[in-house]
Amino acid sequence: MTAHTHYLWFETRKRQEIIDITDQVTEQVQVSRIREGFVLVSAMHISASVFVNDHESGLWQDILEWLEKTIAPWDPERYRHNETGEDNAAAHLRSLTVGHEVIVPLTAGKLDLGPWQRVFYGEWDGQRRKRVIIKVLGET
Amino acid sequence: MTAHTHYLWFETRKRQEIIDITDQVTEQVQVSRIREGFVLVSAMHISASVFVNDHESGLWQDILEWLEKTIAPWDPERYRHNETGEDNAAAHLRSLTVGHEVIVPLTAGKLDLGPWQRVFYGEWDGQRRKRVIIKVLGET
Amino acid sequence: MTAHTHYLWFETRKRQEIIDITDQVTEQVQVSRIREGFVLVSAMHISASVFVNDHESGLWQDILEWLEKTIAPWDPERYRHNETGEDNAAAHLRSLTVGHEVIVPLTAGKLDLGPWQRVFYGEWDGQRRKRVIIKVLGET
Repeated sequence: MTAHTHYLWFETRKRQEIIDITDQVTEQVQVSRIREGFVLVSAMHISASVFVNDHESGLWQDILEWLEKTIAPWDPERYRHNETGEDNAAAHLRSLTVGHEVIVPLTAGKLDLGPWQRVFYGEWDGQRRKRVIIKVLGET
Repeated sequence: MTAHTHYLWFETRKRQEIIDITDQVTEQVQVSRIREGFVLVSAMHISASVFVNDHESGLWQDILEWLEKTIAPWDPERYRHNETGEDNAAAHLRSLTVGHEVIVPLTAGKLDLGPWQRVFYGEWDGQRRKRVIIKVLGET
Repeated sequence: MTAHTHYLWFETRKRQEIIDITDQVTEQVQVSRIREGFVLVSAMHISASVFVNDHESGLWQDILEWLEKTIAPWDPERYRHNETGEDNAAAHLRSLTVGHEVIVPLTAGKLDLGPWQRVFYGEWDGQRRKRVIIKVLGET
């Protein structure tokens, strides 16, 4: 069994942003030389997500609007967490809903994704340095 | 370390459907001969889910209604993704909420699930051929 | 490859409760002597969650209120599952939203979490004995 660990850093321009990181995940699989196993891709923050979905910019806008209108409005007044001086309680709830990590299967040296599946970093409280861990576990 | 990979195909009659796939997962664990490890069960599509919950048909109806009324109404008009010619943006948001994959622990040759836990495929945009990957990783 | 399995038991005083279990997960990592791998932490019930978020009591209250007001009101009348004699359909939907498991990366013998990340058990239908599995998989 072999393990390979790599960290991606982000500092988004906007406070909320969705970024396709599939190519960076693929690159780390190649570096690892692992051919059969699992790739964990996990946000190291509690106000961000990693998820698998579609590379389509209309959908990314839909996701951002849906998080704001349906799941957890930003509105700092409504959350007790924000009494600590933060204003980002909504980002925590968005991270809980969408999840903060995925496991991608690795088969015969390649990410075993369906035809439209891509891996994304979802930044829900950005404009500062944040990190994602990529960890490949398996057999070369 | 051993890995075993298998794909399940679905083509549901209804556009939304919930299907218990625990027996198929158990079967692949037996084929793999792996006794300690993790079983990844993951939808290979961005408009479907894999989840663990209860084998109870009333609950399945509750889940479908809740996705429609609370989480993401189908209503194609409200989503930009549907300007691409699709009408399934809601299925993407449902997949993000419920998740598209689970890891089931494998202990002493058996799925290590609680008494009521079963593994389900949640089809949110069906009536066409779609796939789930089962990947078992561990030691025989 | 080595595997180590441990079960945590809970019996909460309140019906809904959020409990920090990071120290128990860390302890099992030490017992396992595994230094590189993945730690699965997974609720063995369909009315509970395991998630990663912030150790901040205001946020925990926000999460409980958000589950009640936005995601799935307890209101037993609205769910068909409750025709079986249960009243906990909402707890199932909360488990689906927040998820029932996480994978924590294990690097150089330590949980590879970000600075604010902690592992929590989310009890959505407690006051009875329930269980979480911790399974460590990797290399010593």
